[in-house]
Amino acid sequence: MKIVCIGAGNLATRLSLAMQRAGMRVGQVYSHTAASASQLAARLECPWTTDLSALLPDADLYVFSLKDTALADVISQVKPNNGLWVHTAGSMPMDVFKGYASRYGVIYPLQTFSKEREVDFDTIPFFLEVANEQDAVFLRNVAGSLSGDVRFMPSDKRKSLHLAAVFACNFTNHIYALAGKLLAEQSIPFDVLLPLIDETAAKIHTLSPAAAQTGPAIRYDENVINKHLAMLADPDMKAIYRLLSQSIHKEALHE
Amino acid sequence: MKIVCIGAGNLATRLSLAMQRAGMRVGQVYSHTAASASQLAARLECPWTTDLSALLPDADLYVFSLKDTALADVISQVKPNNGLWVHTAGSMPMDVFKGYASRYGVIYPLQTFSKEREVDFDTIPFFLEVANEQDAVFLRNVAGSLSGDVRFMPSDKRKSLHLAAVFACNFTNHIYALAGKLLAEQSIPFDVLLPLIDETAAKIHTLSPAAAQTGPAIRYDENVINKHLAMLADPDMKAIYRLLSQSIHKEALHE
Repeated sequence: MKIVCIGAGNLATRLSLAMQRAGMRVGQVYSHTAASASQLAARLECPWTTDLSALLPDADLYVFSLKDTALADVISQVKPNNGLWVHTAGSMPMDVFKGYASRYGVIYPLQTFSKEREVDFDTIPFFLEVANEQDAVFLRNVAGSLSGDVRFMPSDKRKSLHLAAVFACNFTNHIYALAGKLLAEQSIPFDVLLPLIDETAAKIHTLSPAAAQTGPAIRYDENVINKHLAMLADPDMKAIYRLLSQSIHKEALHE
Repeated sequence: MKIVCIGAGNLATRLSLAMQRAGMRVGQVYSHTAASASQLAARLECPWTTDLSALLPDADLYVFSLKDTALADVISQVKPNNGLWVHTAGSMPMDVFKGYASRYGVIYPLQTFSKEREVDFDTIPFFLEVANEQDAVFLRNVAGSLSGDVRFMPSDKRKSLHLAAVFACNFTNHIYALAGKLLAEQSIPFDVLLPLIDETAAKIHTLSPAAAQTGPAIRYDENVINKHLAMLADPDMKAIYRLLSQSIHKEALHE
């Protein structure tokens, strides 16, 4: 079982390390920059290249983990072979491979990855897709050796899942950053928020987010809301505060 | 050590239960509705009242856990006594007690509370304030018997902390709700997001939110951003998506 990793970013790094740990062998890393390629290859103890025409032709699996904007272009430069080509992008259709590969699919792990941070793969939901039904078992085995939560999902539905993940992860993290800015202005250390942040995440394991909602906006306490708006000097933060408070209130009225 | 609880909402419920568990005795519960007062009193096994003129006059501590809009009005109706009067509101100044009590202060636990959900008080940061320095040790002992993280903070700074908490908790939870709406439209179960939500919260224990940021907005991948905007039918969700993506991008440029 030999894998070629095309891409060496956050997701490529964590996924390839997890694959190797699960007993698969990464035979080569490609990145368009030598620094990224060599760095990941060093961690995997495998060869690397920045030249798409030098990709190994005989791997079982080609994992394309690239920016959405680069994916189609890179695919078009890879010579056809007999391996299964998969990408890892939530928002890209499987058909981006059409016309370039005969066996292709998607392996999308729903998680946030940073190069230097370990994550427990076992609980990560994996969403798979294959062009040819005969590749389903192979790809399910690959994902199943990494995680206990593997399912198939078509591109169209995966696109919505990716959008939901942008809210749940990217926007949430940015809200943490904005909260941190407010604390920094008062020289209050960020870590006072961690028990609150942890409990907010933990709560929705047992309550729906609607049932878990607390705070001035759900009570529509205009007294507090107006005081808060007056405290926010940054016009963007003011707009975000106003919009999210209105949205909380609107949802509450719908229930 | 006898306590009177004025208010029977989420915070009042969890705080009074924690106090009683820590060996303090709740002698009476007040709420303006009999249903709330009797429900909490049953859990605490103590008397209750809906009549402010019937409050016990000889408690050591009077804990006012009320909506901000009700707080001043309720305080003005309580007969003066020798106990320490404290409120639990992040955004209300301590001086709301001025002219009504001789000994007063604030005990603000930075956490999200729901009546039926247990929380571990031991790690909750408590922010205290007292009008008279001689009440500091007493209030610190009360908070210290509940949590290992107790500090004093003046009203003005606490106000900013409360605003940051609205972002970190209330807005975050609402973002979870919006993500859940997107999944529900596609009949995808909400719990597929839980590992992502947990990791997003866990990440910022070791990385700053700025370093932890991932996703299309931090890369300013306009291709993905525009596809996502086109997918959002709800104008409020579209506005939230646009505003938060711009804000992520702006923060990234500042670094």
